[in-house]
Amino acid sequence: MTHKLLTALAALSLCAGSVDAKQWPATTAEVIAASAESDWRNPDPEQTLYLDINGGRVVIELAPEFAPAHVDNIRQLVRQGYFNALPVVRSQDNYVVQWGDPDGTRDLGKAQAQLAGEYARAAANLDGFEPLADGDVYAGEVGFSQGMPVARDTDQGQAWLTHCYGMLGAGRAEASDSGNGAELYVVIGHSPRHLDRNVTLVGRVLTGMELLSTLPRGTQALGFYAKPEQRTPISQVQVAADLAPDQRLPLQVMRTDTEAFAAFIASRRTRTESWFLQPTGHVSLCNIWVPTRINQPADSSD
Amino acid sequence: MTHKLLTALAALSLCAGSVDAKQWPATTAEVIAASAESDWRNPDPEQTLYLDINGGRVVIELAPEFAPAHVDNIRQLVRQGYFNALPVVRSQDNYVVQWGDPDGTRDLGKAQAQLAGEYARAAANLDGFEPLADGDVYAGEVGFSQGMPVARDTDQGQAWLTHCYGMLGAGRAEASDSGNGAELYVVIGHSPRHLDRNVTLVGRVLTGMELLSTLPRGTQALGFYAKPEQRTPISQVQVAADLAPDQRLPLQVMRTDTEAFAAFIASRRTRTESWFLQPTGHVSLCNIWVPTRINQPADSSD
Repeated sequence: MTHKLLTALAALSLCAGSVDAKQWPATTAEVIAASAESDWRNPDPEQTLYLDINGGRVVIELAPEFAPAHVDNIRQLVRQGYFNALPVVRSQDNYVVQWGDPDGTRDLGKAQAQLAGEYARAAANLDGFEPLADGDVYAGEVGFSQGMPVARDTDQGQAWLTHCYGMLGAGRAEASDSGNGAELYVVIGHSPRHLDRNVTLVGRVLTGMELLSTLPRGTQALGFYAKPEQRTPISQVQVAADLAPDQRLPLQVMRTDTEAFAAFIASRRTRTESWFLQPTGHVSLCNIWVPTRINQPADSSD
Repeated sequence: MTHKLLTALAALSLCAGSVDAKQWPATTAEVIAASAESDWRNPDPEQTLYLDINGGRVVIELAPEFAPAHVDNIRQLVRQGYFNALPVVRSQDNYVVQWGDPDGTRDLGKAQAQLAGEYARAAANLDGFEPLADGDVYAGEVGFSQGMPVARDTDQGQAWLTHCYGMLGAGRAEASDSGNGAELYVVIGHSPRHLDRNVTLVGRVLTGMELLSTLPRGTQALGFYAKPEQRTPISQVQVAADLAPDQRLPLQVMRTDTEAFAAFIASRRTRTESWFLQPTGHVSLCNIWVPTRINQPADSSD
């Protein structure tokens, strides 16, 4: 809670949790500093969206392994320019912001109008998944797969994305197949995990959350704005692959199937920074984020 | 995620969880509508703060049962006008906003400059505490006491407030006794439960969170603002008891030691609104809030 957190980076070299193949340091900042180039990946530009709003850019990574039909549909909509100049219609405190066509008149073009919900996928072949040590209130197992927070139920044979801060979902009406990706929301508060498997999650915000989380809250039920002029317009949404390579953001994401990421989780779980009086010794899924960096390690000081 | 949530209030009358003495309805909106006057309380004006910022008012309830010395000190500071015209110095996305004296020169007057941390209290006589059915990742037991989210460890004989959304804490530097309530923070993101028992929590925001959660994020480390002019000033902070009774907000809070609140938790745990495909069947501490109302039941539609 003070500047001192940043400077309290004593050179500790203890191991924690499942990390034992190498001597990793103990704080999140140290783990990131000690990571190798091979611990990072460049997100696939075809699975990356740039959403421009209020003069800034939100970078989103899609999750085709979990919601392939929605991801395809969203990319189709983006490439048609569907979201350009549409507004954020809803901002509910401690819950979600949501954008889409408030009038419902914009042409969906070649995109599907109805998609079956993609609420869960097969648990088999869940890439790189390692269950967290401390369990979860909502699911049998939780962890990360391909950069996304995931729950798994081996009895049911299902795995699904979880509603952590920054997750992107496709709003739907009452019918299970009434979502199509034309109305999207992002979690801006404490994780509403009761939405898991009730709405199709389609990806995650990598950077730029503050552009969404600080939007004025709507005063109507569910955070809808009372007047159209209160809505914030989205300038444009683009697929990163449609920009020239030198126009894309040089953003990198830590691989979640690496020893470095296991060390990062361990550093979140057992806090060795000198400021901490209690090292905690536990960590929940949504209190772990996946580090990103632009040419240099990102701030990881909380 | 749609307007339909609000209208999907079918007249269900099933009981859930520990609620069985009376037939309570099944949705949060219905539980609130079915509550009696005796299920609500008027917060003690002596334990209530009004923080005015950006033309709006944040209402805070203090927690003297958990942090008596800090609460006394904060009230002393408020009554001296200590916080008036001080700014929010820090806004870190998905974490906290924090206010205080950026120069450290303002006179503390009769307030204490150093207080021992009040990180936990005795678990005995924890008023109205009922452990939640689904457990917790961070503590042996969690639930509510006197309107506050609480963890309990009966082996250690300790109970403590938890860092849920909207909780108010007293920042400290490296030393355990370096917090005094002159620098305060509020949780504005996913609950940073690793701070539990590391910082003294002193209360909870009852209403007005959107005035804090939408403040522009600071761009420096830990969300500190780069330039003084980026800080938002607090107009004033007052103890509600110091206002004439007709100048106080007629705010009521649901009692957490009632059957109504148990029914409210059950309604959050098992979602029977027709929109839900999966009733969830689990709920974590920080996904339960304590309902408030001003002359009429508050929105409880998410």
